[in-house]
Amino acid sequence: MSQLGMLIIVSAPSGTGKNAVIKELIKKDTNIFYSVSATTRDPRNKEENGVNYFFVSRDEFEKMIINKQLIEWDEFVNNYYGTPKKFIEDMTKKGKDVILEITVEGAVNVKEMWPEAVMIYLLPPSMDELKKRITNRNTECVDSINERMKSAGSELHYVNDYEYVVVNDNLAYAVDQVLEIVHAERLKTIRNKNIVNKLIRRKK
Amino acid sequence: MSQLGMLIIVSAPSGTGKNAVIKELIKKDTNIFYSVSATTRDPRNKEENGVNYFFVSRDEFEKMIINKQLIEWDEFVNNYYGTPKKFIEDMTKKGKDVILEITVEGAVNVKEMWPEAVMIYLLPPSMDELKKRITNRNTECVDSINERMKSAGSELHYVNDYEYVVVNDNLAYAVDQVLEIVHAERLKTIRNKNIVNKLIRRKK
Repeated sequence: MSQLGMLIIVSAPSGTGKNAVIKELIKKDTNIFYSVSATTRDPRNKEENGVNYFFVSRDEFEKMIINKQLIEWDEFVNNYYGTPKKFIEDMTKKGKDVILEITVEGAVNVKEMWPEAVMIYLLPPSMDELKKRITNRNTECVDSINERMKSAGSELHYVNDYEYVVVNDNLAYAVDQVLEIVHAERLKTIRNKNIVNKLIRRKK
Repeated sequence: MSQLGMLIIVSAPSGTGKNAVIKELIKKDTNIFYSVSATTRDPRNKEENGVNYFFVSRDEFEKMIINKQLIEWDEFVNNYYGTPKKFIEDMTKKGKDVILEITVEGAVNVKEMWPEAVMIYLLPPSMDELKKRITNRNTECVDSINERMKSAGSELHYVNDYEYVVVNDNLAYAVDQVLEIVHAERLKTIRNKNIVNKLIRRKK
């Protein structure tokens, strides 16, 4: 395939089931790959450099920021995390699609740097269902649940920055819908200039 | 479904197999309907008013032109043919998708009147294959075949006005690709404001 790959951005309020959707998606379409982040934190267990993360020093990471080699980055608990531009460029040049799971604020910045990115927003079937899912995790106290619900409510206002919405009511169905979006996006005229040009030149 | 339906425009150089693709598409997705044209020609055989065509007088048709009730129209062999805006409005309001098979020049005009229309261009796998298909029809003389090939060549330059391209190499595969486009378009955020607004209002 001489076609360029795509950057696919997926966001969702926490508790929507984004990770499960992406995991299934990658199983079903072998042309889609996770984006590999750069981080300054130490590798854990069997984590491999270039597979789970690109492990870099603080100095290296800060150079990447200055040289605009990251399409987005953030700092948590004294460690940097970011998305290297080069990884996405290399993959998409090979015709591979890269999926980036990211917050709404990050997504808007990425879209500015990568305007041809496909932006998909996963939605819970209802706010009550979202609350149920977060509560059922049994990992959070009431305050934290309320905090998440509040933040989900305000994140929803970003949905208009996304081209597509998929409701994650049934996992398999949501995965199929995301797949249909990816497949349709591969048929966009702007991504198939080569086919059109070949025909216009009357070559086979 | 409270979602608005879509207007789907399909164009292709003659010989690409557009009719076969649309016929299969409508069989596979029962929410998609042919657009019903208005015409001043007489009904043939079992043709029904409102089903095959809206049969109108020349006076009525000319009134429709003047009142901008047609999203495109043309005249062939002393008869008018056009696409009534009202039919598409009524269908899409009911959530039905309407498919409009139309020339490249017509499509560009329709898109101006109906900017949210989804435009799909069907392509032959190669110009040689297109010539073979036209020749195999056995209905046309050499001059006419050459004329069609010339016109196909110049029509291809309109492809950039279309959002999607689908190569009709294998019929079933081309139909599936058009279906994926239609399904993905149904997931566009602009077509799902109701879902998003419901969630934001925290209603179930």
